[in-house]
Amino acid sequence: MKALKELFDRIVRCVNINLRELDYNVHPFVKNLVPFDQLVKFYGFYGITPHHPLDFQFLHSNLAGSYFLGKCRTTNSILYKSDIRGDELKKKGDVFQYQDFQILISRDEEIQIEDSFLIKTLVHNCSHDPETLEKFFINNTLSAHYANIHGSPTDGSFLGPFATIDLTTMNDCVIGAFSYVQAGEINHLHIKPGTVWVRNLDNFNFWYQYPLDKLSHYIHFAAGKPPQGLFMDFVEKHKKAFQRVFETVNIDPSVTVPSNASLDRYAVIKPKTLISDNVLVAQRAFLQNAWMGVGANAQENCYIINSRLEGFNVTAHGAKIIETDLGQNIFVGFNSFLRGRSKSRLSIGKECIIMPHTIIDIKEPLTMPPGHLVWGLVTCPADLETNSISLKELTKIKEGFSRGSMFFEGTGASFVTALRERIHHILEANGAFYNGTKDRGHAQNNQNISFNLIQPYPEGELKGLFPTIIIRP
Amino acid sequence: MKALKELFDRIVRCVNINLRELDYNVHPFVKNLVPFDQLVKFYGFYGITPHHPLDFQFLHSNLAGSYFLGKCRTTNSILYKSDIRGDELKKKGDVFQYQDFQILISRDEEIQIEDSFLIKTLVHNCSHDPETLEKFFINNTLSAHYANIHGSPTDGSFLGPFATIDLTTMNDCVIGAFSYVQAGEINHLHIKPGTVWVRNLDNFNFWYQYPLDKLSHYIHFAAGKPPQGLFMDFVEKHKKAFQRVFETVNIDPSVTVPSNASLDRYAVIKPKTLISDNVLVAQRAFLQNAWMGVGANAQENCYIINSRLEGFNVTAHGAKIIETDLGQNIFVGFNSFLRGRSKSRLSIGKECIIMPHTIIDIKEPLTMPPGHLVWGLVTCPADLETNSISLKELTKIKEGFSRGSMFFEGTGASFVTALRERIHHILEANGAFYNGTKDRGHAQNNQNISFNLIQPYPEGELKGLFPTIIIRP
Repeated sequence: MKALKELFDRIVRCVNINLRELDYNVHPFVKNLVPFDQLVKFYGFYGITPHHPLDFQFLHSNLAGSYFLGKCRTTNSILYKSDIRGDELKKKGDVFQYQDFQILISRDEEIQIEDSFLIKTLVHNCSHDPETLEKFFINNTLSAHYANIHGSPTDGSFLGPFATIDLTTMNDCVIGAFSYVQAGEINHLHIKPGTVWVRNLDNFNFWYQYPLDKLSHYIHFAAGKPPQGLFMDFVEKHKKAFQRVFETVNIDPSVTVPSNASLDRYAVIKPKTLISDNVLVAQRAFLQNAWMGVGANAQENCYIINSRLEGFNVTAHGAKIIETDLGQNIFVGFNSFLRGRSKSRLSIGKECIIMPHTIIDIKEPLTMPPGHLVWGLVTCPADLETNSISLKELTKIKEGFSRGSMFFEGTGASFVTALRERIHHILEANGAFYNGTKDRGHAQNNQNISFNLIQPYPEGELKGLFPTIIIRP
Repeated sequence: MKALKELFDRIVRCVNINLRELDYNVHPFVKNLVPFDQLVKFYGFYGITPHHPLDFQFLHSNLAGSYFLGKCRTTNSILYKSDIRGDELKKKGDVFQYQDFQILISRDEEIQIEDSFLIKTLVHNCSHDPETLEKFFINNTLSAHYANIHGSPTDGSFLGPFATIDLTTMNDCVIGAFSYVQAGEINHLHIKPGTVWVRNLDNFNFWYQYPLDKLSHYIHFAAGKPPQGLFMDFVEKHKKAFQRVFETVNIDPSVTVPSNASLDRYAVIKPKTLISDNVLVAQRAFLQNAWMGVGANAQENCYIINSRLEGFNVTAHGAKIIETDLGQNIFVGFNSFLRGRSKSRLSIGKECIIMPHTIIDIKEPLTMPPGHLVWGLVTCPADLETNSISLKELTKIKEGFSRGSMFFEGTGASFVTALRERIHHILEANGAFYNGTKDRGHAQNNQNISFNLIQPYPEGELKGLFPTIIIRP
């Protein structure tokens, strides 16, 4: 296992060099996070379909538990339990629109992961960085548990557990636990835990800061210790259910799946779950007694338990929905945690937008009226007052407002439009609007995937590392 | 599945062109043998260890149920449930001795399979053809169920079910069901079913012909029908036991395996089986209540049921041993079928050599004295008289002899020496003599293999075919 340990050291050094101006040393945070024995035991895998461009190259990396659905190249990387999807990569000949610029894509976009260490993380795709349209890279980046790197290049950064960087170009940054950053191009920033920051340079700036004392009940990360808190306990508790799906080569779905819907074979489905038309259930999603209405999706690493989703619902990566009823067209953002109780259900009215990294954790019944935006920590009706606004009211905001720990600058209308457009795009890409002929999306294209399971050298100096593997059409 | 069907047609045409001078059309024999649906459902696999040179290239082939352990290249081939091992490939710098010639191996030997169709077959390795030392090829060859292609190039040939070609270079031949041919370089031959032919051009020639009416009870193959008979029924009956080992990604052994022995994870082991030191149990071996003494081996596709092997026993590919007691140093050749009964056991004395493709099928107890050679069909003590000879007596033969349907020319001593040397080599290669430091073999080197499971395109025109897969160190 010598080479694997050397690779780990190399990645830590690379990240620390990138973070030198922030005077940050990631080593104490990650030194005990790497279960080298697990890295050897777990297999990596990649999908083969005629719908996704096939071009993989894995070189001297560890790929435990990976998942690739498009062009991907990893070199000297450790991808532990990763989901890395390439099914929204730009194709040669596409035209990319950025502000007033129209840029022709000169070759198929490719994911490039080099000297990166991604623990239990998701990297989705669809790069929005106009500077590297054909290259989706991550490079010297290290992320802790269940962090999401979404849709963009990143370099020399460290992400805490359950952190998300979204649609963004990021260099040499530290992103604290449970922070969400969607802020365009950022450099040399140290974002503290529990920050939710959405910025569009010309139009708006949304900022929310979790009270750290309350957040630490959910997630807490300190040097020398693994991440701790309710989120970790929750994920650990459900881990065992995934054992069977990873132990078995091919698995038959335990529920009826309509011909226009898609249930990933690495998802866990418990009774009594219903899958309607155009539903997408992604890898490592966990559904138990989940009613999935038409066009609803359950993205990677999400949990939907004892809940009903009326349709056209987005459940983003890592979101957890428990004992909750959701109307149609609701967006539940990344890593959000919505927990009702069996006798005090949470009810969310149609067309609400749950901001990424929102925690709604109630002991008494709570109903959110339709068409509202909600953010931050909500544990009772009073919190809802300070942590939500109706979209109608928000649209009228011209110069900004503040409510509770949230600060907003810019025009509400541009913010609401940006959110709505993104939600529409997600549903469209996922195939929620497929009518049998038009608007195919992931729900239709990801139905029938052959998975190839690859394992590292089982012993010797290279133990835990993969040989060179090249897959082409 | 269009491309897969085209590939099948192409291979049949290639084989027929090769066989044109024999006026043989393989199409009626194979047209219903190809379960195209199975070809899509089954996965292929290859092993990764630091002990075997890593260099695979799979190109537009179907690899259902394959198994590779060394340099291998397949192009436009269909390998259905194949075991293809590369753990005895010659290495660059080795010196190959052939008669008085000493030839330096100029580059690592490589298996090359092109336009071949191998149904449920085994191809082992270790090419003995001095003309193509660095290339182990099969090419336009089509083989039916459980045929063995062993240790040699082959081209444009058709092998019937349970046929074996061994140590040989073969061109444009038809080998009938259950025939065994080890005859050096042969061309344009049509060998009828049930022929056992072992020839060494300068020294000896062994020939046995099964009575076809009796052989057809065991195996029978006619155009338009799948292979039929007791052998097929036997194999079908045990098929289900393999389901679990192929469904599960990683499997723990159900018996204790000494640290110097090797049990392949694709073998089936039923109680109460004992694995002693230096034992090798290969892929798709089936052991039930099998007592495996020190240095015994159970090669690919063999069955050992309610039997005791005292040690240093070779159970060659496809051999079946049922209700039988074997002394030490016994060789049971390819595809042999030894069946005692629970109340009428078969007992074989030490140092016996069971010729490849021997059938001993008894209803009354039978004991074979030590140090004998046996061949052909034996169902009672009288058959044993006409189908065996003591090795001592055989060694004294100077010019040949005939017994029953067996004809022998040449010197018995050279035949016995050749057999003994080969058996010693097999035990040595399999690690039977490993003493903790010296004489490592497959039992020690094949212990800890990572298997990578690869699957073909799941839909579309390429359904059933694999993309290009290249694996290098």
